[in-house]
Amino acid sequence: MADRVIEELDRDESLRLISPGGIGRIAYTSRFGPTVLPVNYTFYEGAILFRTAENGPLDQDLRTGIEGADYEVAFEIDDIDMGGEMGWSVLIQGPAHHVTGPDREEAYRACVEPWAPGSRELLVRIIPSHITGRRINHS
Amino acid sequence: MADRVIEELDRDESLRLISPGGIGRIAYTSRFGPTVLPVNYTFYEGAILFRTAENGPLDQDLRTGIEGADYEVAFEIDDIDMGGEMGWSVLIQGPAHHVTGPDREEAYRACVEPWAPGSRELLVRIIPSHITGRRINHS
Repeated sequence: MADRVIEELDRDESLRLISPGGIGRIAYTSRFGPTVLPVNYTFYEGAILFRTAENGPLDQDLRTGIEGADYEVAFEIDDIDMGGEMGWSVLIQGPAHHVTGPDREEAYRACVEPWAPGSRELLVRIIPSHITGRRINHS
Repeated sequence: MADRVIEELDRDESLRLISPGGIGRIAYTSRFGPTVLPVNYTFYEGAILFRTAENGPLDQDLRTGIEGADYEVAFEIDDIDMGGEMGWSVLIQGPAHHVTGPDREEAYRACVEPWAPGSRELLVRIIPSHITGRRINHS
């Protein structure tokens, strides 16, 4: 498609695009192999925050079995214009952990409420260690 | 959110939803940890097909180093109504492989052209071994 260009986005532009929050997709290696699931997220204090169910699949999969240890995940956010056949995507890679302790309350209040019904009181934070982004546009 | 319900989708309904093709997100374990990227896909003869660049990151990551061997991936498709705060998602897990040999030409013709510019002549097929789906709706 000669009429399109692909542009690499730097860290600042990637963070600007994802900072309003919305829907992102978390990818990780579960007991059943690679897995990716959409979640409602908030970008707060430089990190991705979302809520999930205690003892749900995402909880069990993201526990390392070692108290306080992190789990490496990917988090992808995009905005795609199907009609215009263009869009951007940002990929965050980094450790995920359950938010506990004194900073939980403030982070919990900042975090968007999940659309999915049922109790989702487990707060997960992903700290970006690597951020990449790209945009496909018409030239 | 007491006004919402979550519904598990069976295999037939999940396949019906993804069969028109469009944008999906492939997740796999790369050299740099879990990774997830959007691609234009076609659903053809019971499998996901997409094109990527030879020797691009997705090519290199999806090579096992063993000729003819498969690579376990996840592929996620969704349709989310941000305003209505509802939507569905389907998760496919299974082996990915490069399509070569006598069936490549027909599969290549069936496969959607990627939006991303540049030569993307590598044809990848994901054969679903496990399909799950869910829909969040207002009750």
